[in-house]
Amino acid sequence: MTDTKALVTQIAHDGALITDFLADYFDAMTSPASQLVSAMRYASLNGGKRVRSALCLSAARLAAPQDEAAIERAIAAASALEMVHAYSLIHDDLPAMDDATTRRGQPATHIKFDEATAILAGDALQSEAFVLLSSPACSIAPSVALHLVSELAIGSAAAGMAGGQMLDLQADAAASSGKAFDASQTEEMQAMKTGALIVAATVMGALSTGTDEMPADAGLVANLRAFAAPLGLAFQVADDVLDVTADAQEMGKPVGRDKEQGKASFVDFYGLEGARRYAADLVDEGCAHIACYGDDAKPLQNIAQFVINRSY
Amino acid sequence: MTDTKALVTQIAHDGALITDFLADYFDAMTSPASQLVSAMRYASLNGGKRVRSALCLSAARLAAPQDEAAIERAIAAASALEMVHAYSLIHDDLPAMDDATTRRGQPATHIKFDEATAILAGDALQSEAFVLLSSPACSIAPSVALHLVSELAIGSAAAGMAGGQMLDLQADAAASSGKAFDASQTEEMQAMKTGALIVAATVMGALSTGTDEMPADAGLVANLRAFAAPLGLAFQVADDVLDVTADAQEMGKPVGRDKEQGKASFVDFYGLEGARRYAADLVDEGCAHIACYGDDAKPLQNIAQFVINRSY
Repeated sequence: MTDTKALVTQIAHDGALITDFLADYFDAMTSPASQLVSAMRYASLNGGKRVRSALCLSAARLAAPQDEAAIERAIAAASALEMVHAYSLIHDDLPAMDDATTRRGQPATHIKFDEATAILAGDALQSEAFVLLSSPACSIAPSVALHLVSELAIGSAAAGMAGGQMLDLQADAAASSGKAFDASQTEEMQAMKTGALIVAATVMGALSTGTDEMPADAGLVANLRAFAAPLGLAFQVADDVLDVTADAQEMGKPVGRDKEQGKASFVDFYGLEGARRYAADLVDEGCAHIACYGDDAKPLQNIAQFVINRSY
Repeated sequence: MTDTKALVTQIAHDGALITDFLADYFDAMTSPASQLVSAMRYASLNGGKRVRSALCLSAARLAAPQDEAAIERAIAAASALEMVHAYSLIHDDLPAMDDATTRRGQPATHIKFDEATAILAGDALQSEAFVLLSSPACSIAPSVALHLVSELAIGSAAAGMAGGQMLDLQADAAASSGKAFDASQTEEMQAMKTGALIVAATVMGALSTGTDEMPADAGLVANLRAFAAPLGLAFQVADDVLDVTADAQEMGKPVGRDKEQGKASFVDFYGLEGARRYAADLVDEGCAHIACYGDDAKPLQNIAQFVINRSY
C-alpha cells in the first residue's frame, strides 16, 4: 500500500528543486528582450505537478543511488525537460490551437502577455532547453550530453510530442465531422503527445548519471523505457477520467471540454470504471518492467500510482 | 573584382545540396502526423537563397579543404540550421506576428495549411534540427556534435534569434506610439534577429569538420565569428535598401511594409546612399578578419559581397 501523503510530499519536494533551478536560471539570463524572458519565466514557474521531473529524478536515484553530483545533473536535465513541457503548454493554449484562456488557474501566457509574446516565449523555451542540455550543468561527458539532446529532441519532434498535438487537432476536426478517432487512433496520438516526453524524462534521468567511461546501464535504460511507455498513456486515460469527475477549480482549467467538442475520450471507449481499470492495468504493465530492482524501484512505481490516483 | 555570375552559380549549387539533403530527410521521416511533415517540408523547401548554408559550407571548405567527408557533415549541419531558419519564417509570418500571407512568392505556411499546423510545423522543425544535429550525419565526435548543438541553440534562443524577433515586435509597437527605435536599438535588435544565426552558420561550418582529436582551430573559429557578426547587420541594412528600391515581384514578398508601419529603417537613419555605404563598410570590416587566409577566404568574402549587392 502506497503512503500517499509521503509520496505527494516527495513529488512536491522534487518539484521544488526544479522550480528553484529554473528560477535561478531565468534570473541569470541576460537578454535585452526582457519581456520575452518574463513570459518564459511565467510559463515555466506557473505551478504544475512536475510529474516528468519526479520521474527523471527518481530514475536518476535508481541509476546512481547516493551519487549527489549525478542527482544535481539530473535536476538540470529535468529543468530542460520542463522548459519543453512549458513551451508545449503555451502553444497548446493559443487561440489557433486549444484556445484556452487559463492554465493551472492562472491566465494562459497569451492572455497574461499577448499572442506574439506567447509564441516567441514557447519558441525560446525550446531553444533554451537545448542550451541547458548541452551545458556542463547536465552532464560531465560529451557523449552523455549528446544522448540527452537526442532523447529530448526525438521526444519533442514530429514522431513525438509535436506530431501528437497535430494528431490531436486532427481528432478534433474528425469529431466535428462525425468521424471521431477510435480507441486505437487515440492511443497512437496520446503515445506521441504525452507518452514521448514521459519516456524521455524517465530515460534522461538515468542517462544523466553516466560518464564517458561508465554510461548508464543499457539494460536499465531499456527497462525504464518499457516502464514509462504505458505510463504516458495511463496519464492520459486518468486525465479523461478526471475530465468527467473533477471540478474545474481543482483542475485549474476548464473541464468537460472534450465532451463538448464531441471528441471521443477513453471514458467513452471503456466507460468510467473501464477507463479506471485500463489506467491501472497500464501502470501494472509498466511497473512489472522495473520490478527486478525490488525496493529501489518503489519510488518510480509510486509515482506511477500517483499518476492515475491523483485528483488534479 | 568579384565574378558575380560564378558566385551566384556557386551559391545556387550549395543551396541545391542542402535542398536535396532536406528533401531526402523529409522523405525518410516516419511520423503518423503526415500533415505536419508536409508542412515542415513545404516551409523548408520553399526556395530561399540559402545564404546561411553557403556560409556554412564555405567555412567548412576553408577549415578542411579537400576533406569530402567533412563537407558532407557540414551539409547536414547546414540543413539543421535551415530547419531553424524555416521555423522562424513560419512563425514570423503568423497573423499574431508579421501577418504576412506570402513568402518567396508562395502562400505562407499558415495560408497553405492552417494556423495551428503552421505553429506546430515550426515547433517540430526546431526539434528536428536538434535531432539531426545530434545524429552521426553531422559529426564523427560527440564533443563536436555538442558544440554544434550549443552554437545553434544559443543563436536561436532569447539572447539570439527569438529575442531579436521579440525586440522587432516591440519596435513596431514603439513606432506606432511615435517612439521609433533609434539606430543603436535597431542594430542591437538586428544583431540578435538576423546576426546570431548568420554567425552560428559560419562557425558551425568550421566546427563540423573537427574530430575529437583534432577539433576545428580555435583561432579560425574566432576569426569566422568576427567575420560573420557585421555581416548579419549588413544583410539587414541591405534588406532595408531593397525594401525601398526593389519591387514586390522580385522580392517575393510585400515591400515598403516597414515604412507603412512608421518603423525607422537604416535608410531613414542614414539615407539611401548612406545605408548602402554602411552595408559596404560592415562587409569590409568583417572580411578584414579573414584576410589572413588569402585566396582561401575569397569564397566567404564573395558571399559577403553578394549579401549586400543582391537584387532580391
